[in-house]
Amino acid sequence: MSRPRVHVLNGPNLSRLGRREPEVYGTTTLAELAALCGGWADGLGLDLVFEQCEGEGELVALIHRAGDQAAGLILNAAAYTHTSVAVRDAVCAIAIPVVEVHLSNPAAREPFRRRNLLEDVVYAGVRGFGTEGYRLALEGLAARLRD
Amino acid sequence: MSRPRVHVLNGPNLSRLGRREPEVYGTTTLAELAALCGGWADGLGLDLVFEQCEGEGELVALIHRAGDQAAGLILNAAAYTHTSVAVRDAVCAIAIPVVEVHLSNPAAREPFRRRNLLEDVVYAGVRGFGTEGYRLALEGLAARLRD
Amino acid sequence: MSRPRVHVLNGPNLSRLGRREPEVYGTTTLAELAALCGGWADGLGLDLVFEQCEGEGELVALIHRAGDQAAGLILNAAAYTHTSVAVRDAVCAIAIPVVEVHLSNPAAREPFRRRNLLEDVVYAGVRGFGTEGYRLALEGLAARLRD
Amino acid sequence: MSRPRVHVLNGPNLSRLGRREPEVYGTTTLAELAALCGGWADGLGLDLVFEQCEGEGELVALIHRAGDQAAGLILNAAAYTHTSVAVRDAVCAIAIPVVEVHLSNPAAREPFRRRNLLEDVVYAGVRGFGTEGYRLALEGLAARLRD
Amino acid sequence: MSRPRVHVLNGPNLSRLGRREPEVYGTTTLAELAALCGGWADGLGLDLVFEQCEGEGELVALIHRAGDQAAGLILNAAAYTHTSVAVRDAVCAIAIPVVEVHLSNPAAREPFRRRNLLEDVVYAGVRGFGTEGYRLALEGLAARLRD
Amino acid sequence: MSRPRVHVLNGPNLSRLGRREPEVYGTTTLAELAALCGGWADGLGLDLVFEQCEGEGELVALIHRAGDQAAGLILNAAAYTHTSVAVRDAVCAIAIPVVEVHLSNPAAREPFRRRNLLEDVVYAGVRGFGTEGYRLALEGLAARLRD
Amino acid sequence: MSRPRVHVLNGPNLSRLGRREPEVYGTTTLAELAALCGGWADGLGLDLVFEQCEGEGELVALIHRAGDQAAGLILNAAAYTHTSVAVRDAVCAIAIPVVEVHLSNPAAREPFRRRNLLEDVVYAGVRGFGTEGYRLALEGLAARLRD
Amino acid sequence: MSRPRVHVLNGPNLSRLGRREPEVYGTTTLAELAALCGGWADGLGLDLVFEQCEGEGELVALIHRAGDQAAGLILNAAAYTHTSVAVRDAVCAIAIPVVEVHLSNPAAREPFRRRNLLEDVVYAGVRGFGTEGYRLALEGLAARLRD
Amino acid sequence: MSRPRVHVLNGPNLSRLGRREPEVYGTTTLAELAALCGGWADGLGLDLVFEQCEGEGELVALIHRAGDQAAGLILNAAAYTHTSVAVRDAVCAIAIPVVEVHLSNPAAREPFRRRNLLEDVVYAGVRGFGTEGYRLALEGLAARLRD
Amino acid sequence: MSRPRVHVLNGPNLSRLGRREPEVYGTTTLAELAALCGGWADGLGLDLVFEQCEGEGELVALIHRAGDQAAGLILNAAAYTHTSVAVRDAVCAIAIPVVEVHLSNPAAREPFRRRNLLEDVVYAGVRGFGTEGYRLALEGLAARLRD
Amino acid sequence: MSRPRVHVLNGPNLSRLGRREPEVYGTTTLAELAALCGGWADGLGLDLVFEQCEGEGELVALIHRAGDQAAGLILNAAAYTHTSVAVRDAVCAIAIPVVEVHLSNPAAREPFRRRNLLEDVVYAGVRGFGTEGYRLALEGLAARLRD
Amino acid sequence: MSRPRVHVLNGPNLSRLGRREPEVYGTTTLAELAALCGGWADGLGLDLVFEQCEGEGELVALIHRAGDQAAGLILNAAAYTHTSVAVRDAVCAIAIPVVEVHLSNPAAREPFRRRNLLEDVVYAGVRGFGTEGYRLALEGLAARLRD
Repeated sequence: MSRPRVHVLNGPNLSRLGRREPEVYGTTTLAELAALCGGWADGLGLDLVFEQCEGEGELVALIHRAGDQAAGLILNAAAYTHTSVAVRDAVCAIAIPVVEVHLSNPAAREPFRRRNLLEDVVYAGVRGFGTEGYRLALEGLAARLRD
Repeated sequence: MSRPRVHVLNGPNLSRLGRREPEVYGTTTLAELAALCGGWADGLGLDLVFEQCEGEGELVALIHRAGDQAAGLILNAAAYTHTSVAVRDAVCAIAIPVVEVHLSNPAAREPFRRRNLLEDVVYAGVRGFGTEGYRLALEGLAARLRD
Repeated sequence: MSRPRVHVLNGPNLSRLGRREPEVYGTTTLAELAALCGGWADGLGLDLVFEQCEGEGELVALIHRAGDQAAGLILNAAAYTHTSVAVRDAVCAIAIPVVEVHLSNPAAREPFRRRNLLEDVVYAGVRGFGTEGYRLALEGLAARLRD
Repeated sequence: MSRPRVHVLNGPNLSRLGRREPEVYGTTTLAELAALCGGWADGLGLDLVFEQCEGEGELVALIHRAGDQAAGLILNAAAYTHTSVAVRDAVCAIAIPVVEVHLSNPAAREPFRRRNLLEDVVYAGVRGFGTEGYRLALEGLAARLRD
Repeated sequence: MSRPRVHVLNGPNLSRLGRREPEVYGTTTLAELAALCGGWADGLGLDLVFEQCEGEGELVALIHRAGDQAAGLILNAAAYTHTSVAVRDAVCAIAIPVVEVHLSNPAAREPFRRRNLLEDVVYAGVRGFGTEGYRLALEGLAARLRD
Repeated sequence: MSRPRVHVLNGPNLSRLGRREPEVYGTTTLAELAALCGGWADGLGLDLVFEQCEGEGELVALIHRAGDQAAGLILNAAAYTHTSVAVRDAVCAIAIPVVEVHLSNPAAREPFRRRNLLEDVVYAGVRGFGTEGYRLALEGLAARLRD
Repeated sequence: MSRPRVHVLNGPNLSRLGRREPEVYGTTTLAELAALCGGWADGLGLDLVFEQCEGEGELVALIHRAGDQAAGLILNAAAYTHTSVAVRDAVCAIAIPVVEVHLSNPAAREPFRRRNLLEDVVYAGVRGFGTEGYRLALEGLAARLRD
Repeated sequence: MSRPRVHVLNGPNLSRLGRREPEVYGTTTLAELAALCGGWADGLGLDLVFEQCEGEGELVALIHRAGDQAAGLILNAAAYTHTSVAVRDAVCAIAIPVVEVHLSNPAAREPFRRRNLLEDVVYAGVRGFGTEGYRLALEGLAARLRD
Repeated sequence: MSRPRVHVLNGPNLSRLGRREPEVYGTTTLAELAALCGGWADGLGLDLVFEQCEGEGELVALIHRAGDQAAGLILNAAAYTHTSVAVRDAVCAIAIPVVEVHLSNPAAREPFRRRNLLEDVVYAGVRGFGTEGYRLALEGLAARLRD
Repeated sequence: MSRPRVHVLNGPNLSRLGRREPEVYGTTTLAELAALCGGWADGLGLDLVFEQCEGEGELVALIHRAGDQAAGLILNAAAYTHTSVAVRDAVCAIAIPVVEVHLSNPAAREPFRRRNLLEDVVYAGVRGFGTEGYRLALEGLAARLRD
Repeated sequence: MSRPRVHVLNGPNLSRLGRREPEVYGTTTLAELAALCGGWADGLGLDLVFEQCEGEGELVALIHRAGDQAAGLILNAAAYTHTSVAVRDAVCAIAIPVVEVHLSNPAAREPFRRRNLLEDVVYAGVRGFGTEGYRLALEGLAARLRD
Repeated sequence: MSRPRVHVLNGPNLSRLGRREPEVYGTTTLAELAALCGGWADGLGLDLVFEQCEGEGELVALIHRAGDQAAGLILNAAAYTHTSVAVRDAVCAIAIPVVEVHLSNPAAREPFRRRNLLEDVVYAGVRGFGTEGYRLALEGLAARLRD
């Protein structure tokens, strides 16, 4: 019997993970994070798609595809969290549950990161736990998919 | 004798038309809307190019191309209406008349849709008539092109 | 068989049409616009009432009357668009569809014209097409009344 | 011996009472409300004048007249509560006590109803009790007039 | 047969009533006000509980208790009106009708008293009538409980 | 040979002049002010029309008429100074020079009197000189008409 | 060997859990949540203290005590999240890691819940997962305490 | 018998009068304006001191001196009108009547000229009449000094 | 002959003094500060009551008591300085002079500490001198009580 | 052995002390205040320089000189407190401790006095004690210089 | 020996250079500008990469590449300067010095160009010199790379 | 043949250059900077006047003199950049090209340095290059003067 499928989408600059401001984001690279998520998902009985892109339009398209192919979405929209109505509209345009994840705690950083265009259209969020936050989001989403 | 050519450009998430929040946007799909517009344009003696894209940079490029190849532009920039200075600059960078169209009435929705970076650089606008609004915009633009 | 009746109501200073800032509002007078609307309405199978007044209270009363006697309303509230909660309340107090029309594009003018108390309680709007916009509004409203 | 006289003034759109958004304003008509107030005033030993108008200038004039002829004023300025400095100035231009009444609770509605130009120049206010609020205002005013 | 029970809750500094800024709040003490309310309630066929506290948490607890034991609540939250989300949440957490009362007219005082966190979650309000306002609130609430 | 004609228009509540807050506005009545202005205009070789109205729409109409019949306009729009886009639009809709007059100094009063919708569309203004200000405005306007 | 101790502190109105707006907060009571947390903590090798209070000062004192006796703190400050500098100062006054938890997603609710005085002084946060969020917070904190 | 003495003080950049943006300020030089004012004052039975300075501190000192030596002050503070609390404090520190004058109409210019720190501490003002405004201010002040 | 009595009241988190962020607040504990104040007061011929509490309601009650029993009050309201209208109202509800003290300089810290609800209802303030500031406040208050 | 030297600098309009709004600033003149400060400084073992100026640039220069010649600075920048970035920059450009003094309590006055450009770059402040505040500032500064 | 390499990156709509609003941006095309920069760089001993793109994601990727391959970056982010947190994050994610260049002076244009998300994360900037500004930026950067 | 003359004007606190916050402004003194500029100007075929002053009025006068005697102006208005309408007006009152220079990058500092009253009335600007920026500004200005 097929397992539920979850997409994990990562936005701009996350390709630099491990090299970009490691005192903020840690030293794990994106490839290592993808591997970690694969293992956690497997343990929770989930199939995983893990993707990253730099462009706003590409991220919109990946969210659409998740809406068509997945049972749930974990989204780290990075900078687009603070500026993109298009990404917000894309989240509204799909019917699966979406969890917002951030490696760091944006609230403890620059004022413009206080503006968040996604937080009121996702059903839940996790922030500040570093890469561990992806595991918690997967668990929380798995619990919801079991309900 | 060649007929005036009009471009109709559609921004992010309009690819989901018919499936995305149908209580807001109706059940007509983008392909059906393209066909409708083709018929209306034909009746008004206009050639039509009908396009959609998700990306901000792509939309900028399509606006540039319209400025080079068309006599008028009908633009539904969707979410970029509210956030994109680049799209605004592209509209200013071309010399043909531009009409702004929205399927719904953005003013009756979230506060951030009140910010509109295009409305003061287009010459006219139509909103809230659903897909019928594309027909009205084509007529208004045709009248202007005949002047 | 009687035809559906539409009221077209015009607010303050539109009595000066043709003489007031013609570079903004054009040279058509209000009487000429009334005649044009009469012709367009006739072609669409509609009965037309075309009125203008300067006062806020008078406009409220005319909207009430439209609500009692007409199948649809086209409203150019002019300056009251930006300041009148009473006109807004009158629009809410009637049950027929209302289309908002503006000759110019208010968004391209003074900042205080960005505040619009009507745009979220009408179902549709047309702006910036000059007197042509009245024709587009009549067409859009006729389509809706036929639905 | 003559009884103290109280004016009850009602602003724009209250002529639609009973028909306008009955889920907000109830089903009592303005004529019925006038009759109710007449009875309550009588029981309190007060003479009553009960009036309504749509216009801002008319309401200013009625407030002036109340200032000349009455011992107290109950004012439901409706929409003008939120927009009219003229009505405010009229209230300041008379010397009798003024009570502000609202059928509904404006604070639970649109944000622009949070701006109130009267509430700091009246001495007291009642809101949200529907037509019952007029009775309470009459009682409160009667008590004050007895002091 | 038991009579409906109403709680009257008073917030911080009302213990100083009669001594605190008498030109604003009058010379009646809290004990005298409690006695007056007792008499008014009795005349309206209501049982009355009359309480005051200084603390935000205590007021939350008293509101909870009212929600469990009373048919209606009259609340003068005093300073917490302007600052307390907790008191607001407590009002939302109970199912009985709540009337907001103020002795003075807060709108005629400092700007920070214009912010009111309760006015949109109560169903009605009375302000500016001094202690008489408690009588009016009891009457209004009694009328509602009879419906 | 005919003399230039000047209209002096007075807005809402100025009918109460001499009785309304005399510590702010003085004890001269509107009729006395009209007589004073008549004398001053005569001395300056001007014909004078002196009018007052309470309504916003009426004031708009009087401004239109001044635009048609007079060489210059002195306008004390009173409360509409702070709220009326319609009056502002009327001032823009006429081609004669307009001087704004205020008896008191609005800047020294409530904050909402700091918002002035006329001051940037008139060419000059006088405030705070009481009824003497009308004389100064007549002189300044006469000088301009002589240029 | 002793196990690390974690305090879970709950702020005002959480005593109503299960009865208060169940469509927002679910039907689990606070006692049931305490039991659930006890089980989860046990499975993670943690000792648990689970407390609730209504008052701001009480919550400050409980945070101080957690700072003295616990290795980590999970804090659902409820309404005080949005208003209390004192609670924020208390979090800053202790040296253990603090995780912020919310049952619902405050960002999807009233605007005043967008102001959050804690989010930039905690190291991590979880919201919107209902009671499941307490389990995720315990896991995330346990991972941190193991580092 | 000695005549009342009036000081006319001019702030920064007025030394450039006649050369600076003549389309805004006209072609009269400061020396010519001083001569004009001397003549007008003489005709009104006033002694005149006419001064200009560039510095904020110098202007403060000149205002102090006017307070010690003059019966009235006409002040064109130019740019300091919009920025200087020190000039405002100086105006408050003297006991003679002060009239504010502006050659142009600041309200019709840049937004930062809308902020005026003097207008609520002077008793009257004249703007937009060019150099003629100095004559009107002298007349108004003379009338006041005669009272 | 009895000596004047002064109360020194300390708000939330000051119980942590000496342990809480010592780089901001120093290493003196609250008990040591109480002893220091006792000595300083004695030298100035004052009786001293020195108290601390965490709760807003408790602080209100302590201020009331100071108003009844003391000749002057020194108040360090800590976090409530920035959020509590209740504490402000309590200060207004008593008739003795109140001096505000802060150990650190709040203006050099987070933006929300710029909002101060007490500073305009106390007669004087001292900040930034650390514990020395309590001594200066006692001296200043003693001088005032001697007047 | 030489004593530490302290400069006391006073900004614009303080030259009017004793004559300017005595109900706010008292009747002591600046010369008398200088004498008082001289005595207090002597008692504390300090050498004193006491200066006043009207100009912003002069005050900047005096602050520079204090930075070169003194061990500490007491600064009453008067109006420049609220407007001068130059004075702020001067304070930052010197390395000695600076205490801010105000005779009155600016917070209890006009809103624009709430903006303070110095309070976050001085280490301490005293306000509202009248001339006594200079004595307290000298004591506090002396204590600091002894550390 | 290899020469230091500098990347010059140009954002959206700069592909229209020479055709887009030439009164603002001049008549030099992007190709001509690239050739000019090539010559200037050569004269300064620098290798040059000159690129343009329309998309936000593409620009992010080009900045990453510059961070990996170049010694310095000159960035004209055009419209993204005002809207893109992603571009800002990309600038922060690289370790080479970045100079911001604008052909025109954005501050002299629309208000939304006053918001600049890059200016505080670059080390230097040049604006308003037209294409000459690229030469100045290359010189400034060359000087820095020589240090 | 005479060479074009350029003035370089420096505002308040730049007299402290080299000693004031060297981590922000570097260790070059103003005298050394004057010498550097002299050499650069000479190499560009320009005559140079290099001045500094602390006062706002003095700077206004120096700008006037530059307007009378120079072909171009380089202006580092320092703190007056952010507060002085007088300096702005002086720049507008002269007809020569003006370049704005800042040693540091104000945007990366305090929020009040974001307000810039000069940037929209100069034709170009350079910031953040330290003293090197004066050289770039001289070159840019020289190029313009050669056009």
